[in-house]
Amino acid sequence: MTEKKLILGLALHDGSGALNNAWRAPQVNPENYANFEANIRYAQAAERGKFAFLFIPDFPAVRGDIEHGGVRNIIDPMIALTAISQATSRIGFVATGSTSFQEPFNHARQFKALDVLSHGRAGWNAVTTSDPAVAANYGKPVAERSERYQRAHESIQIVQALWGSWQKEAWIKNQASGQYIDSSKLQPVNLQGKYVASRGPLAIPPSEQGQPVIFSSGGPSPHLLALAGRYASGFIGEVWTIEDGRAQRAMVRRAAEEAGRDPDDIKFFAGIMPTVAPSVREGLDRRISILGDTLKAQVPQLANMLGVQIDRRRLDEPLTTEQLSGAYPSRDPRSGIALDVARQGWTVRDILAHGVIDYHPTVVGPAALHADHIQEWFEAEAADGFWLSPDIFEDGVDAFVDEVVPVLQQRGIYPSDYIGTTLRENLGVAEQYGLDPRVVGTED
Amino acid sequence: MTEKKLILGLALHDGSGALNNAWRAPQVNPENYANFEANIRYAQAAERGKFAFLFIPDFPAVRGDIEHGGVRNIIDPMIALTAISQATSRIGFVATGSTSFQEPFNHARQFKALDVLSHGRAGWNAVTTSDPAVAANYGKPVAERSERYQRAHESIQIVQALWGSWQKEAWIKNQASGQYIDSSKLQPVNLQGKYVASRGPLAIPPSEQGQPVIFSSGGPSPHLLALAGRYASGFIGEVWTIEDGRAQRAMVRRAAEEAGRDPDDIKFFAGIMPTVAPSVREGLDRRISILGDTLKAQVPQLANMLGVQIDRRRLDEPLTTEQLSGAYPSRDPRSGIALDVARQGWTVRDILAHGVIDYHPTVVGPAALHADHIQEWFEAEAADGFWLSPDIFEDGVDAFVDEVVPVLQQRGIYPSDYIGTTLRENLGVAEQYGLDPRVVGTED
Ligand SMILES: Cc1cc2nc3c(=O)[nH]c(=O)nc-3n(C[C@H](O)[C@H](O)[C@H](O)COP(=O)(O)O)c2cc1C
Ligand SMILES: Cc1cc2nc3c(=O)[nH]c(=O)nc-3n(C[C@H](O)[C@H](O)[C@H](O)COP(=O)(O)O)c2cc1C
Repeated sequence: MTEKKLILGLALHDGSGALNNAWRAPQVNPENYANFEANIRYAQAAERGKFAFLFIPDFPAVRGDIEHGGVRNIIDPMIALTAISQATSRIGFVATGSTSFQEPFNHARQFKALDVLSHGRAGWNAVTTSDPAVAANYGKPVAERSERYQRAHESIQIVQALWGSWQKEAWIKNQASGQYIDSSKLQPVNLQGKYVASRGPLAIPPSEQGQPVIFSSGGPSPHLLALAGRYASGFIGEVWTIEDGRAQRAMVRRAAEEAGRDPDDIKFFAGIMPTVAPSVREGLDRRISILGDTLKAQVPQLANMLGVQIDRRRLDEPLTTEQLSGAYPSRDPRSGIALDVARQGWTVRDILAHGVIDYHPTVVGPAALHADHIQEWFEAEAADGFWLSPDIFEDGVDAFVDEVVPVLQQRGIYPSDYIGTTLRENLGVAEQYGLDPRVVGTED
Repeated sequence: MTEKKLILGLALHDGSGALNNAWRAPQVNPENYANFEANIRYAQAAERGKFAFLFIPDFPAVRGDIEHGGVRNIIDPMIALTAISQATSRIGFVATGSTSFQEPFNHARQFKALDVLSHGRAGWNAVTTSDPAVAANYGKPVAERSERYQRAHESIQIVQALWGSWQKEAWIKNQASGQYIDSSKLQPVNLQGKYVASRGPLAIPPSEQGQPVIFSSGGPSPHLLALAGRYASGFIGEVWTIEDGRAQRAMVRRAAEEAGRDPDDIKFFAGIMPTVAPSVREGLDRRISILGDTLKAQVPQLANMLGVQIDRRRLDEPLTTEQLSGAYPSRDPRSGIALDVARQGWTVRDILAHGVIDYHPTVVGPAALHADHIQEWFEAEAADGFWLSPDIFEDGVDAFVDEVVPVLQQRGIYPSDYIGTTLRENLGVAEQYGLDPRVVGTED
């Protein structure tokens, strides 16, 4: 048995980068949003770095300050990943698709088609939609949580049953005898839920990994944990500290056990927003030049997080001893990190440039720092792997792949090549056809 | 002004061919159904022949004798066309998508994403679903016709409005000023129908052709004509004779005029099933060897069409003078063609090998015969172009492209190169953003 290795994924979105104002950076082509070639390039770089998957979050609505911030979403996850599949050969594809506004038969069909096309590299991040702006695009209000999750259970069960409805040995295709299908092995599923239903079968043969992998993403609510525990092989988490990561990973694993599954069959991914640079100073300067004015706008939030007054005009001074002794971390998990950074004596601008108010833990500086963060979390069992949101994709993916990945490999915690050709192999989860036999029948 | 040229399209489906038993032919790999490379090859051949578009019909259900006949459908139209788009640069993509079981926002998004990805080559064959086997995959019965068509009108209007919701000049993307979008030019559509609704906007910029083209397909019922007349730029017809073609084309054009549009903005495509061979005899032999037993099974239908008794054991004899004098064409438009062929003295097997009971007119033999058929129909204004269903794709597309296309070009009725880079340019229909301004407001 080889030792367990960590798994990396790359989040893709509008082609610019995870930082505010990324689209304005000089190395970014502001047309990238409509230019699929850009995401193809980043996918190829991630594949050079042996990343197991690309992850595409999806909130299909115009949200936030689009006038200045850009669209912050991908044009279409399935179309983008299908195009990328034609220019890559190993990296997997995890697209978000909402169970709230799509027919299970359509999800089943498109994800399995991508799975067959890509020779077993597809995954479905099955979410429910809680954003009213997205729901309005379907002319509907947001359903209450228990209805959304009931529909999600029904949808995933139907989708997995459809995926299994073309059995492994169904496809005879004997030209001499004239038998194409053994029709006893391609049978309807006849599933009737409260919200969705399908007869099937779905006439798509198994892929090299059997069928696509299910992912879940979100905060660890009981509803989401129950869903993830039953069906998911990957969990896209949002955690700020090692303690947080350990706790959420344990919850997700417990949920799998409660559904009768092996907890090793669900991998927990923590987020990380890397800025790779020769030194911390150069990394902070890179971020400051990208973020521009949006940095200053975060001062009140920082003050709030630390429970101190901060003068916006004194951006280039560290917090005073007085400010520091009055500061205390709020319940926001990021405030402890912010306080640590502040105590190191950085100016207010630099504290913010450390990404303390970003969506995920940020690492800024040389490759070894990134490797340290990742190794520490991984060895503390706070994550089975990480999903990365680089500051700027155009050079940020290359920097991570060419500088951080070799360090992780030297340290023996990251594979030097793909383990296999399918997403399941590279995640370390078993082949699957249809519903997980351990889960079937435990329906509420 | 150059003279009007005819337009060709190629129908794609399971990767084998239009003939029964095509999957068993020795030159066909019986795994083609799951092998996207096969359809990519055919698409590239069609592009060499300057075809304006690929057309993918869609009946997503297990239908007919799948045990022996194969699946006869494509795994997924959008996934297949997206993959093909990455290996081609001029040919257009017309995918069928049912308005009955898809949210308009999803259709709007995926088709426009493909349109942007392919630099203006996408089209949507917007159909309603009347097949109970397909409806059952969505857990629903087939709605009655007026409801289906009402939902189709609402869906197409919402989709086109969403397509136009990102206006031509909306995308500022000025890195220096920091303005990404002129948000006065990216506005919600707020359409509320009886069956479907959407707020929008859809955050996808115009493609090189503005937005995808709408196609219609089907028999010329008043419901379908009203739909096609308002929205469609292409009409996929099913016609057997020149008279039929002239009549249906005229109906489709009249429907466009009644909706306030220029009748030249809707192109009528007749079907054709070509077998290209050095001689008619060799073409018939090719078809006989592919069709095998399925030919004999058609004898009762032929007898019925001609109103005569035909002995199945006398397959290799022509009809007798007695049989011929007793035969009369039924109301089936194919029976006139069958009678003509029978009177030429062909054996029963050869009559059937002429494809007289197939879905579209069949031409069998050398290139000049195909060119004659096409030219005659085209010059009689029975069609603006043709959609082809070759007997076997593997060698049938190449044969048509390499042998028939040059003859059509020599005769001056077919372009020697693509007219433009977008589907609209190659169809000869205008750019469009949003709803056709002549049609808006005429809503029932
Ligand atoms: C890291 C992370 C990623 C997420 N990705 C998506 C996404 O791509 N699309 C989406 O609709 N929701 C996404 N969510 C939202 C969750 O699926 C969920 O809807 C949200 O946490 C609200 O919780 P509830 O559904 O339990 O009410 C994400 C959440 C987190 C924390
Ligand atoms: C040439 C041709 C192609 C068609 N292609 C499709 C198709 O791909 N998918 C589909 O659901 N229906 C297709 N149809 C069916 C029509 O859209 C329509 O549903 C059918 O003619 C029944 O008529 P109705 O809808 O007016 O009841 C096609 C029909 C014809 C004649």
